[in-house]
Amino acid sequence: MHIGVIGLGRMGGNIVRRLMDNGHQCTVYDVSEKAVATLAGEGATPAGSIEEMVEGLAAPRAVWVMLPEGKITADAVEALGAAMSADDVIIDGGNSFYKDDISRGAALKEKGIHYVDVGTSGGVWGRERGYCLMIGGDKDAVDRLDPVFKTLAPGRGDIPLTKNRESRDPRVLEGYMHCGPTGSGHFVKMVHNGIEYGLMQAYAEGFDVLKTKASPNLPEDRRFDLDVADIAEVWRRGSVVSSWLLDLTASALAGDEELSEFEGRVADSGEGRWTIEAAIEEAVPVDVLATALFARFRSRQDHTFADRLLSAMRFQFGGHAEAPGGEKQKVKT
Amino acid sequence: MHIGVIGLGRMGGNIVRRLMDNGHQCTVYDVSEKAVATLAGEGATPAGSIEEMVEGLAAPRAVWVMLPEGKITADAVEALGAAMSADDVIIDGGNSFYKDDISRGAALKEKGIHYVDVGTSGGVWGRERGYCLMIGGDKDAVDRLDPVFKTLAPGRGDIPLTKNRESRDPRVLEGYMHCGPTGSGHFVKMVHNGIEYGLMQAYAEGFDVLKTKASPNLPEDRRFDLDVADIAEVWRRGSVVSSWLLDLTASALAGDEELSEFEGRVADSGEGRWTIEAAIEEAVPVDVLATALFARFRSRQDHTFADRLLSAMRFQFGGHAEAPGGEKQKVKT
Amino acid sequence: MHIGVIGLGRMGGNIVRRLMDNGHQCTVYDVSEKAVATLAGEGATPAGSIEEMVEGLAAPRAVWVMLPEGKITADAVEALGAAMSADDVIIDGGNSFYKDDISRGAALKEKGIHYVDVGTSGGVWGRERGYCLMIGGDKDAVDRLDPVFKTLAPGRGDIPLTKNRESRDPRVLEGYMHCGPTGSGHFVKMVHNGIEYGLMQAYAEGFDVLKTKASPNLPEDRRFDLDVADIAEVWRRGSVVSSWLLDLTASALAGDEELSEFEGRVADSGEGRWTIEAAIEEAVPVDVLATALFARFRSRQDHTFADRLLSAMRFQFGGHAEAPGGEKQKVKT
Amino acid sequence: MHIGVIGLGRMGGNIVRRLMDNGHQCTVYDVSEKAVATLAGEGATPAGSIEEMVEGLAAPRAVWVMLPEGKITADAVEALGAAMSADDVIIDGGNSFYKDDISRGAALKEKGIHYVDVGTSGGVWGRERGYCLMIGGDKDAVDRLDPVFKTLAPGRGDIPLTKNRESRDPRVLEGYMHCGPTGSGHFVKMVHNGIEYGLMQAYAEGFDVLKTKASPNLPEDRRFDLDVADIAEVWRRGSVVSSWLLDLTASALAGDEELSEFEGRVADSGEGRWTIEAAIEEAVPVDVLATALFARFRSRQDHTFADRLLSAMRFQFGGHAEAPGGEKQKVKT
Repeated sequence: MHIGVIGLGRMGGNIVRRLMDNGHQCTVYDVSEKAVATLAGEGATPAGSIEEMVEGLAAPRAVWVMLPEGKITADAVEALGAAMSADDVIIDGGNSFYKDDISRGAALKEKGIHYVDVGTSGGVWGRERGYCLMIGGDKDAVDRLDPVFKTLAPGRGDIPLTKNRESRDPRVLEGYMHCGPTGSGHFVKMVHNGIEYGLMQAYAEGFDVLKTKASPNLPEDRRFDLDVADIAEVWRRGSVVSSWLLDLTASALAGDEELSEFEGRVADSGEGRWTIEAAIEEAVPVDVLATALFARFRSRQDHTFADRLLSAMRFQFGGHAEAPGGEKQKVKT
Repeated sequence: MHIGVIGLGRMGGNIVRRLMDNGHQCTVYDVSEKAVATLAGEGATPAGSIEEMVEGLAAPRAVWVMLPEGKITADAVEALGAAMSADDVIIDGGNSFYKDDISRGAALKEKGIHYVDVGTSGGVWGRERGYCLMIGGDKDAVDRLDPVFKTLAPGRGDIPLTKNRESRDPRVLEGYMHCGPTGSGHFVKMVHNGIEYGLMQAYAEGFDVLKTKASPNLPEDRRFDLDVADIAEVWRRGSVVSSWLLDLTASALAGDEELSEFEGRVADSGEGRWTIEAAIEEAVPVDVLATALFARFRSRQDHTFADRLLSAMRFQFGGHAEAPGGEKQKVKT
Repeated sequence: MHIGVIGLGRMGGNIVRRLMDNGHQCTVYDVSEKAVATLAGEGATPAGSIEEMVEGLAAPRAVWVMLPEGKITADAVEALGAAMSADDVIIDGGNSFYKDDISRGAALKEKGIHYVDVGTSGGVWGRERGYCLMIGGDKDAVDRLDPVFKTLAPGRGDIPLTKNRESRDPRVLEGYMHCGPTGSGHFVKMVHNGIEYGLMQAYAEGFDVLKTKASPNLPEDRRFDLDVADIAEVWRRGSVVSSWLLDLTASALAGDEELSEFEGRVADSGEGRWTIEAAIEEAVPVDVLATALFARFRSRQDHTFADRLLSAMRFQFGGHAEAPGGEKQKVKT
Repeated sequence: MHIGVIGLGRMGGNIVRRLMDNGHQCTVYDVSEKAVATLAGEGATPAGSIEEMVEGLAAPRAVWVMLPEGKITADAVEALGAAMSADDVIIDGGNSFYKDDISRGAALKEKGIHYVDVGTSGGVWGRERGYCLMIGGDKDAVDRLDPVFKTLAPGRGDIPLTKNRESRDPRVLEGYMHCGPTGSGHFVKMVHNGIEYGLMQAYAEGFDVLKTKASPNLPEDRRFDLDVADIAEVWRRGSVVSSWLLDLTASALAGDEELSEFEGRVADSGEGRWTIEAAIEEAVPVDVLATALFARFRSRQDHTFADRLLSAMRFQFGGHAEAPGGEKQKVKT
């Protein structure tokens, strides 16, 4: 297929490469002329603007937008919508909020333009491993893009087959899924990331228990000095907690058990937050997912106003004053 | 009554004073000779050792131990047990673990000595306000000590009466309660402190939401600049969240809205921890109480190994590198 | 003052009564003719419609809207806005979302109408105790309404004074507070309710630990059988956890320690949810407040899909099958 | 090697089979004569008692105990200790508490008997996949048992190698690890299970968000009807959340998306609980791991006393009465 790609960062660039490696033709655009030139050097057709890209594609056109969510994506989609014609397709492969998809899709539909939202998981490993794709949009548009999705997805590989799937959609086994109408792709990707936060936090807490010298109320000669790099590695083999995230953990710890190059200020993105908000809308308890998000908020602060208020209350009722490494208990409470 | 008191720290000393102010006679002992001398100067009978105290009291004796929980209390109770006789009473007014009470009580019972555990709440305000007393032990011993408990407790004061209490124990309205057998007093006090952690954390989080400049996605001129000292004060009056802890919060914030003299490293004591362990034994979910405890653990660390592991995983799968104030998102994940 | 009141449910009706008891004049309207007639019988001036109410008030008018948040309040405010003139004031005393206040206030400002949002706490006890009022809006409008706020608020009563408040706003000591611009009153009330959820959950969990027969791994004759009604009562007196919510707890338990008339399906309102969303916007960790909200969600379901998925996973990896009262462990995992 | 195995349940029986399949000789004992006879029929040497087993093994002996943790394991270890001689080895392959290991190991050491604790992960899949083994004990005893561990472990298989492991213990790549002194094997397995609970809960919550009809505040025709079986399947391929637990989830959902054969009453074992207690001893915050444990507690109750207390408080302050599916809000609070 011939497809336009806007946004040539690490994700967008690798998507173009994986497409071209597999026989697709890409017209590319980015605000960075250098990024465009690099991919042109690898075989892509460069475009100097969104409008030029649209002109260079034959109708019905397909353009994949791979930009940071928010205003940048909104502006690109709007510009595309203005330049494109009925029956063209805009694909948003970024991390947009699913309610934004729904409103953008409705606006474009008035002009007859299809809007397809694609949650794209795989990170920097995707070019090689392939991307897990969660797709929302009209059946016609999604079907038309099937060759692109099939190329970007990982394929069946050597992953063991799940039983009882005979009557189910075989595309899923290739690593891509048409989830439902507009917005549903990003909705599923959003929950994916919410789960990801929870999984990561579970490993992080467990390894913290292992790493902290255990059991202060045991005799000193019985405290364990555990090799967390080896533990992560051995759990990859036959244990219940084996996972791709554990593979990454083992890799990080093998390099440095102390992880001393990291300070521990952990970012979060919209998807983790929106998952909590979606759960609240549905009245679904998501204690672990919310806790994992809040742990990231907390990690970015040295001390919170909340903590200071706890100390202040304790001082008021008990005359406790803080001491380094915790408060010194002057009286009982 | 004539009673011995061991441990003359802020709590023990004030207990002696409240007892003497109300006509009781106290023999006092502490490892600090200065503490003994101070209270002797206020009318107490000094003792130079636990044995001397026991000799100076007429049988059946009563000695109130007011020491930090753990080995110090264990040693004092053991020494008392060795020096005392059948039908004497040892009162542990500290924060001992209720299972320790049970084993100590059983050991002393073999010699015919009564053991009474008293959870004592009130902090530095207790001398003036009185202490809320949660008492475990044999009925006979508890009844015998009634004059002491009645004096230490706050009394009815002007607290509005609860309906439907006509047939219930009137001592409770004075602020002391015989909860059950040995250990039950400290068990109830333990849960009291567990709840206290939860309440404090709820206020702390709420005030943090108020204090943090609200709503970054609102136009700047609409962000609120709230006076948290006034908010704490107004909530004391007619709101659903009024409480003694809120009174203390209002007091702390009136002095300094920023609480800048506190860093926010918050101590915890055994009782908060044992509450979680008791809940686990009972299979009772205590999400809020556990979370409040963990927030204190977290407050005493700058960064955790858990947080560093999150950053390391993110770096592995997405090429995200940390940046000051959070990680810089280089690519989507 | 002469003021209109729309919405004569339990809250609105009691507000009218407290106002009239203290010399104010009220014109009242409700969709229920019976509610209007009842208050007319107690001295209020009845109105047959919003328009009739507005006509019956002298400019500059003030109308207090006391309706459920959402469309009902939005419609009433819109109708009032259409009927009123520049310099009139609309007060929303309900539980509206603060962002709705901001947009409503901005719309009304174009016509010169003031919009004042008032968070009103006190429940069914407010007529007697007074209401804690958290107020957002223009200084002029708020000052003009001062006689109304002063009447509705509890007044200083016998609540002990907080130190260091000499230089601060004395209205706060009466139980009402001008928090800031439009929306800030409901924002503060929202967080108030968020805290309320957290406080309630802390008590609930603690009493659950007390009520559940403690310590299954203790010998049977040492398990405590605690009187939770007495415990709630004794904690009202001198303990750190005394509060108005504890007063209510003591009252409920004195009537029936088993609380057998309640099933335990607990509702939540918008404010608890919005508090979490506001915290997420601010990146403030609110583990306890969120957990308290999720506990209510959970309480309204018999079993969740999440729980079934846990059972299904366990069955897959360990051959564990569920049994009544938990799963029967067939093999270790 | 020739080894004794006590406990021939699903785990113990499969361990015997995997050992015999790979050339080891096993003497077996179980209280169930039928279990002994079954394995004798497959080539094992039957023993009629622990003593008979010990007599039938040549010194230095090795006996693997595979029994439920607690008294049953304690009794078997004690009986073995009485029958065995210096330099023999007892292996506890069950889920014992690591502090029990430490005291058992110390008692046996007085007689010169080695005690090796082995955390064994793999469930019913272990016979085929191999077991991940986490081993604590003396180096000599652990080294002597190497042929057994190597056989039981999964081996390197086709799991991709982790970088930077050149200088590390190669046994780990086979799927078994000598973690440290006595108790450390079960300590590591304990944390493994704690993490397992957290991972499972993260998936469970996320799928609950997907399964619950999303977004009640969206127009009805925009609510997604998501196929959770396909979602689990597609995430196995190239996504960040792929794992063995997700494989099991996909398998369970492919059979029945509603999971209707499960009610959702989820058991927990000692290891999840001890992880929380170990974290509390270390003052490590483990919000996610604790929350996951509490969710299981909650799943086994229809309604909690905590929930009833929330309803009772709400009734007291607001006149709210419960209604089916939640409480009917009669007045605002």
